[in-house]
Amino acid sequence: MALLPPLDDAALGPDARAVFDDIRQSRQTDYVNDFWRVLAHDPPTLARIWAGAKQVMAPGALDPLVKELVYIAVSVTNNCEYCIHSHTAAARGKGMSEAQFRELMAVVALANETNRLANGYRIDVDERFRSPLA
Amino acid sequence: MALLPPLDDAALGPDARAVFDDIRQSRQTDYVNDFWRVLAHDPPTLARIWAGAKQVMAPGALDPLVKELVYIAVSVTNNCEYCIHSHTAAARGKGMSEAQFRELMAVVALANETNRLANGYRIDVDERFRSPLA
Amino acid sequence: MALLPPLDDAALGPDARAVFDDIRQSRQTDYVNDFWRVLAHDPPTLARIWAGAKQVMAPGALDPLVKELVYIAVSVTNNCEYCIHSHTAAARGKGMSEAQFRELMAVVALANETNRLANGYRIDVDERFRSPLA
Amino acid sequence: MALLPPLDDAALGPDARAVFDDIRQSRQTDYVNDFWRVLAHDPPTLARIWAGAKQVMAPGALDPLVKELVYIAVSVTNNCEYCIHSHTAAARGKGMSEAQFRELMAVVALANETNRLANGYRIDVDERFRSPLA
Amino acid sequence: MALLPPLDDAALGPDARAVFDDIRQSRQTDYVNDFWRVLAHDPPTLARIWAGAKQVMAPGALDPLVKELVYIAVSVTNNCEYCIHSHTAAARGKGMSEAQFRELMAVVALANETNRLANGYRIDVDERFRSPLA
Amino acid sequence: MALLPPLDDAALGPDARAVFDDIRQSRQTDYVNDFWRVLAHDPPTLARIWAGAKQVMAPGALDPLVKELVYIAVSVTNNCEYCIHSHTAAARGKGMSEAQFRELMAVVALANETNRLANGYRIDVDERFRSPLA
Repeated sequence: MALLPPLDDAALGPDARAVFDDIRQSRQTDYVNDFWRVLAHDPPTLARIWAGAKQVMAPGALDPLVKELVYIAVSVTNNCEYCIHSHTAAARGKGMSEAQFRELMAVVALANETNRLANGYRIDVDERFRSPLA
Repeated sequence: MALLPPLDDAALGPDARAVFDDIRQSRQTDYVNDFWRVLAHDPPTLARIWAGAKQVMAPGALDPLVKELVYIAVSVTNNCEYCIHSHTAAARGKGMSEAQFRELMAVVALANETNRLANGYRIDVDERFRSPLA
Repeated sequence: MALLPPLDDAALGPDARAVFDDIRQSRQTDYVNDFWRVLAHDPPTLARIWAGAKQVMAPGALDPLVKELVYIAVSVTNNCEYCIHSHTAAARGKGMSEAQFRELMAVVALANETNRLANGYRIDVDERFRSPLA
Repeated sequence: MALLPPLDDAALGPDARAVFDDIRQSRQTDYVNDFWRVLAHDPPTLARIWAGAKQVMAPGALDPLVKELVYIAVSVTNNCEYCIHSHTAAARGKGMSEAQFRELMAVVALANETNRLANGYRIDVDERFRSPLA
Repeated sequence: MALLPPLDDAALGPDARAVFDDIRQSRQTDYVNDFWRVLAHDPPTLARIWAGAKQVMAPGALDPLVKELVYIAVSVTNNCEYCIHSHTAAARGKGMSEAQFRELMAVVALANETNRLANGYRIDVDERFRSPLA
Repeated sequence: MALLPPLDDAALGPDARAVFDDIRQSRQTDYVNDFWRVLAHDPPTLARIWAGAKQVMAPGALDPLVKELVYIAVSVTNNCEYCIHSHTAAARGKGMSEAQFRELMAVVALANETNRLANGYRIDVDERFRSPLA
């Protein structure tokens, strides 16, 4: 049970209501999930997180489905049950196939494995890998 | 300094050498990075991890660049310095632009943030998110 | 279901009973929560953890409510469901307002986000930050 | 070495410059640390993270020093070297004593310990802890 | 509820069936637990993970019970509920006593505590600890 | 560089000195490593953590080398550089072979991998695994 209950629309003040309106319009659905309904207890955080999510998850150099896959990867690594479920649903809505989900899980698992081999053996970074973006 | 030193080619036994040959052929480069040179102290693990990486990171339902991005996302979440550098280099080699890297970082950061909001407030999973793949 | 069941008072040996007596006296309540009732299967650990908690969480340079907030922050970052609930209750008992809880969640979330930006970009520590306490 | 180099003021575009101006004014110092100078490669993220930090870390129901302590607690739990150093310096600037820092470390360590006892034994949440804020 | 349902034997294709046969023969039991029944949706991953587990968990320089204890230690640190339960059962089957489990929990908890003291104070590695295996 | 410098023997007060004496006697060596020399800034924490380590790591139902292996497993999972180095040295001193270390790394890596498969697919715990110790 959430520490603060999800708020019904009727319980929203004007600031939270404005965010909900934008969620509905952006997503083209009347459904607002409980993540936002709990954050609605804290309208400045609700507004900040929604604005951030809208900016970060928008189409850009990476397409929205890839961003959802990355989101799931982080959520699985951190074991956030809510986030795994909600972003798997979101990815599904953006076209993720079951085969893509299975491959995603395999990559996440492998990365978690090799992260520990590299950290456990304390392997130094190869000189040539040091500045890949510069 | 690694707990076990990276092995030169001359120090490899036949099992490790066979893996290195496959790494070189698969990647079409003579360069074998230190991750594999340290694992070469343990040939069965070297062989197992290389075979796994080759299988998991191959083109499939997800393309190889997307898999590298997911790999980086996990490595950043876990703070694996070696893996961030080596897979950023790998992603660069597969065409990742600097803009894509920046967006990737933004998504990883946002997911780590919202994971804690969902977990901290103990938000229950919406009924409609429970079975997205079934 | 816990791997070992919480022990009733009647099931306690003398060492565990002495710890429970101290918990009750220190907290000025008859209620002993299940964390201690499960640890009671291992009296030396029960005694050590209770003595540690009593020492660490006592008023000192930081006041007890601040310590509870820090405790919750760690528990949210690690996703310890039991600890989030029990220490939110403890913080509430020490005067934490709902507004303080909401701000705490926002700080925890932000820190988890910026931790990954700093780690992901591999940002070097500014020279002037290296010795803030010396 | 950071994956993207910290940017000098001369290298900033107008959007990043505006954020730097606000950082300088808000903090009443000319010094802008490298976290922001690296994020300056991505002006929308720079602007978003700075605005978030300014909002979240401002005085509110919790005072700014307490927020810094919570920030450090998260950063230690996640092992973010940059963040531990920069926020310890920030906390120092807001009046944190060395004794407070030492107590903070003790609380963070204890919470990480008891988190694993609770999770490892799979202890169920006491009924009375379930709704501390409702 | 799992994102993909555990598969009954009747639903297995030949590749997954071959893995299940090997699990049954290796473990000398007809029971195949749901971890494998969910992975059976992805036969290459099922085969790879099972082969890896069989290789890694086999008797070697470390005995199988010690390996199970290590597995539990990691699973508690990461808070993997499924893995804690399944590997505690496995360790029990290999002779783990309740006293051993309690000591294991104490070590895991202590290590998580001291990890944060070392990371939080940013303690440099003693020169003499740098090359313990070389 | 540590946030507080390791203290020389000459800088110790009587409480810290008593702990150092016990460390030296218990370990039968004059060498006291920097973990304790940094904690010496906080004598109550120094005394508490040393007493805890002495109790928890002592021979019991698990032998001391197994406890060191578990300690390393946790430290690798959390990426505590100091702890990996110091406890690998400790394990080495208690007889850990290089082959045992390599197997340990393989188990830690595998567990981190399968933890994410179990968490990512949200696999429910098998009924028969629920009460392995009761």
